[in-house]
Amino acid sequence: MSSSKKVIELFYDVVSPYSWLGFEVMCRYRHFWNIELKLRPAFLGGVMQESGNKPPGMVPNKFKYMTSDLQRLSKYFDVPIGFPADPFEVMFQKGSLRAMRFVAAVQEREVGGDKQVEKVSRELWRRIWCEDKDITLPESLSEAAVKAGISAGEIEELLKLSQSRLLKLSQSQQIKDKLKSSTENALEYGAFGFPMVVCHVNGKTEAFFGSDRFELMAHCIGEKWEGPQPSKASAKL
Amino acid sequence: MSSSKKVIELFYDVVSPYSWLGFEVMCRYRHFWNIELKLRPAFLGGVMQESGNKPPGMVPNKFKYMTSDLQRLSKYFDVPIGFPADPFEVMFQKGSLRAMRFVAAVQEREVGGDKQVEKVSRELWRRIWCEDKDITLPESLSEAAVKAGISAGEIEELLKLSQSRLLKLSQSQQIKDKLKSSTENALEYGAFGFPMVVCHVNGKTEAFFGSDRFELMAHCIGEKWEGPQPSKASAKL
Repeated sequence: MSSSKKVIELFYDVVSPYSWLGFEVMCRYRHFWNIELKLRPAFLGGVMQESGNKPPGMVPNKFKYMTSDLQRLSKYFDVPIGFPADPFEVMFQKGSLRAMRFVAAVQEREVGGDKQVEKVSRELWRRIWCEDKDITLPESLSEAAVKAGISAGEIEELLKLSQSRLLKLSQSQQIKDKLKSSTENALEYGAFGFPMVVCHVNGKTEAFFGSDRFELMAHCIGEKWEGPQPSKASAKL
Repeated sequence: MSSSKKVIELFYDVVSPYSWLGFEVMCRYRHFWNIELKLRPAFLGGVMQESGNKPPGMVPNKFKYMTSDLQRLSKYFDVPIGFPADPFEVMFQKGSLRAMRFVAAVQEREVGGDKQVEKVSRELWRRIWCEDKDITLPESLSEAAVKAGISAGEIEELLKLSQSRLLKLSQSQQIKDKLKSSTENALEYGAFGFPMVVCHVNGKTEAFFGSDRFELMAHCIGEKWEGPQPSKASAKL
């Protein structure tokens, strides 16, 4: 890893479809830009509550707009977003706390990279925002982890770690604290929603909210924006 | 005007700095893209109230983000946005109803184009979002109109038309209704804030909220996005 790489932190939660767009774009551009991407799974519910923000879906015209906006962006970004039958139940009743603790546990145990975190996150997004499947039950998390290529033994450990009732408190507390700490970090950077991308440039931080500031972000970090699907021909890898 | 031109309506209010960005970008691209731009001055206060939306500035972290976001976008878009000393007074106490009625009056009387509407709108934005000046008093509107190149006699007429106490009700009512009608049109298109750009493509409408969907909009109307400052060399005019 070159020391000249700019560090970019991506705060996200799989409950947020706009985070999925931001996640896929950053996962693509990590191979094109001279950056070190740090995936920062965090808890959107905590950010909304602490910042006093309200979900955009609560305003009917905003909700209608979001559905058509996401449909258009899904095609343009080539990310297979589809609305669940009951998005309010998915987002506000079932939520993502357990799922994000599970992702935090994956990150805690993964060594030498973040491939597992990337894959598990993607599978969880796919479950709720494409296949309209649950992400709250242990078997749901397990299915996502299997698809992400994690072994059965490892999945059992991860479930124990991310669910306090399955393991002694001290270990699961570590995972709870990890997710809480990431969420607090996001708030310290000024988050009021996700995705939140924090670029560390020349000793300064520049935070970008949403999945619609990539062109400006590229400009700020001295890279070139080539749209949400950068040409593979020019990949550095 | 070629019949193949795509009609694009831009709903805006000078109280909104993001609308200024959208306005300048669309005013630039009207010379680059095969479009007919229709300026639709409207009243943001009405849209917020009717849609049940809350201004983003009410959430502290959002407000902080907006200030740095606008500062960055201002440079990148080359639009001289600066925050007034008391943005809350400007946006929520003083508001823009009279100013937007004045712009509606300019549009009502302008024949053969929208140069005056464009210039007056820009001068009003410049007053609040660059020079921290009032836009509620008749003399403020008059100053903006002078800078926009409108004659003294015409300005007097415009002030009368846009302020009911200066003229008989029926005429000023026409202007009130014009602004109200534009605001209702925006709501019918699903607006919950400004800028709102409505593209008419192949008998369908595609609405884009904010000043961060131009790349997607270009894609939808079959044009090329070249950033907020398209090269003058390739201008069609």
